[in-house]
Amino acid sequence: MKRLIAVVGGSTCSAVEAELAADVGRLVAEHGAILVCGGLSGVMEAACRGAKQAGGLTVGILPGDDPRDANPFVDVPLATGMGEMRNALVVRVAAGVVAIGGGWGTLSEIALARRLGKPVVGLHDAFPGVDLPRVADPAAAVARVLG
Amino acid sequence: MKRLIAVVGGSTCSAVEAELAADVGRLVAEHGAILVCGGLSGVMEAACRGAKQAGGLTVGILPGDDPRDANPFVDVPLATGMGEMRNALVVRVAAGVVAIGGGWGTLSEIALARRLGKPVVGLHDAFPGVDLPRVADPAAAVARVLG
Amino acid sequence: MKRLIAVVGGSTCSAVEAELAADVGRLVAEHGAILVCGGLSGVMEAACRGAKQAGGLTVGILPGDDPRDANPFVDVPLATGMGEMRNALVVRVAAGVVAIGGGWGTLSEIALARRLGKPVVGLHDAFPGVDLPRVADPAAAVARVLG
Amino acid sequence: MKRLIAVVGGSTCSAVEAELAADVGRLVAEHGAILVCGGLSGVMEAACRGAKQAGGLTVGILPGDDPRDANPFVDVPLATGMGEMRNALVVRVAAGVVAIGGGWGTLSEIALARRLGKPVVGLHDAFPGVDLPRVADPAAAVARVLG
Repeated sequence: MKRLIAVVGGSTCSAVEAELAADVGRLVAEHGAILVCGGLSGVMEAACRGAKQAGGLTVGILPGDDPRDANPFVDVPLATGMGEMRNALVVRVAAGVVAIGGGWGTLSEIALARRLGKPVVGLHDAFPGVDLPRVADPAAAVARVLG
Repeated sequence: MKRLIAVVGGSTCSAVEAELAADVGRLVAEHGAILVCGGLSGVMEAACRGAKQAGGLTVGILPGDDPRDANPFVDVPLATGMGEMRNALVVRVAAGVVAIGGGWGTLSEIALARRLGKPVVGLHDAFPGVDLPRVADPAAAVARVLG
Repeated sequence: MKRLIAVVGGSTCSAVEAELAADVGRLVAEHGAILVCGGLSGVMEAACRGAKQAGGLTVGILPGDDPRDANPFVDVPLATGMGEMRNALVVRVAAGVVAIGGGWGTLSEIALARRLGKPVVGLHDAFPGVDLPRVADPAAAVARVLG
Repeated sequence: MKRLIAVVGGSTCSAVEAELAADVGRLVAEHGAILVCGGLSGVMEAACRGAKQAGGLTVGILPGDDPRDANPFVDVPLATGMGEMRNALVVRVAAGVVAIGGGWGTLSEIALARRLGKPVVGLHDAFPGVDLPRVADPAAAVARVLG
């Protein structure tokens, strides 16, 4: 059975973050895992794009009730209608979490994943004040959560 | 974007119900839609099996927190840890619902789907006392919810 | 510890249904239980009004994110932002459920409560086609779910 | 209508944290607000105890499905069966959040509350690396979230 790996980060992001996210998405797909995310833009979209370019499968757990809110690289758009509570679901269903940049929503996902005992790793400059294992590049991130 | 069609029914079912479910799953896949269900055995497993035999994609929204609870034909196992509240999520994310037999859990899904204004159709002998559009065979069921 | 009893029914209702709901609410309070409902109008409001007139405590589990959507007899307005998925929460937290009239939303609550093995009873003309224990009056309803 | 104020923190805590939590609970009650928390021990129990000693009303949003898991100072035990996803509900229903110590679960609640734009304040040594408004004592905390 394929594992699900969550990529979490902002719905807006820098070009550097987008490139990191795309690389993570690609590596998740190349490792045979399924990419799960919040389904929107920014880091989420870049990660989905990377996964699709590598022939992977992508799942978007959306806050609203319209699947068309999903970015164009989401294969399975899940319009939960749960609002920001869907953050909890994103990490709940994942076997591991890679965080790239992001704001409070992303931090809520990191913290809940840690609470649930799931492997979480931070790339780039994600939440400098938070006790989060850091890695230098996408390959190390994916290796760590899929280890 | 592919649409999601939910098949709901019991985790145990008769041979007739399983055959109907497999046919519905196959037709959902042949129409290019994604099959979503509760991810367990019985009608859920038969529907997933049918979808996979037709090269489709299957999503299982599980009540527990272990993705290995999913039946072997689930591509995307979502271990929500929400218990029976996951029933609400199954129909929430679906564009339409096909009900085949089933018990109280299934009825909760039918009713919530109707409450949300989604197309719902009943096959076989599903809930004779409930005001539910009935169809005679899987082809009519899938045509109706994908209309 | 006080038990929670859910009253479920339509957000619009007849005068007869409102009177039944108010009587159930009053009796729930007189038995020392807490009334829980969906927090809106109709049967929910009448039940809360009855409970408050008897000095009881009322909880409204709202679909939206504004506690001011609650009817004026709700003591604890819980604005879940979960939409109709909040129906599952209403019955999940209750020790028993009394159904009075209502539509598909109410039926989803009845069915899920039955699925969870909780005592459920129907008053008035609730869902004639559904296999639901029926009682003739509010006193019998409350006795049954608080038994 | 009374407002709900959430107190979040660990299910185990120091004597200093417990005293702060009890003071916050008492002040929430004295300001006529309802205390909401995760319903368990530690900071949650101390806050409920303080609120009850001041004649307040307390709500516990529990992860499991047994209301008897609530601490003895919870008036309204809501056994959600949602697991750690209930954290999202605790802050979702609150008008403001006071954090006292705690671990990853607490941080998930802080972050989600910030994401939702709700007033959040940290007491004691809560999450030194997180950008959280800090106050020196319970009175300042309650004034800030009820402002």
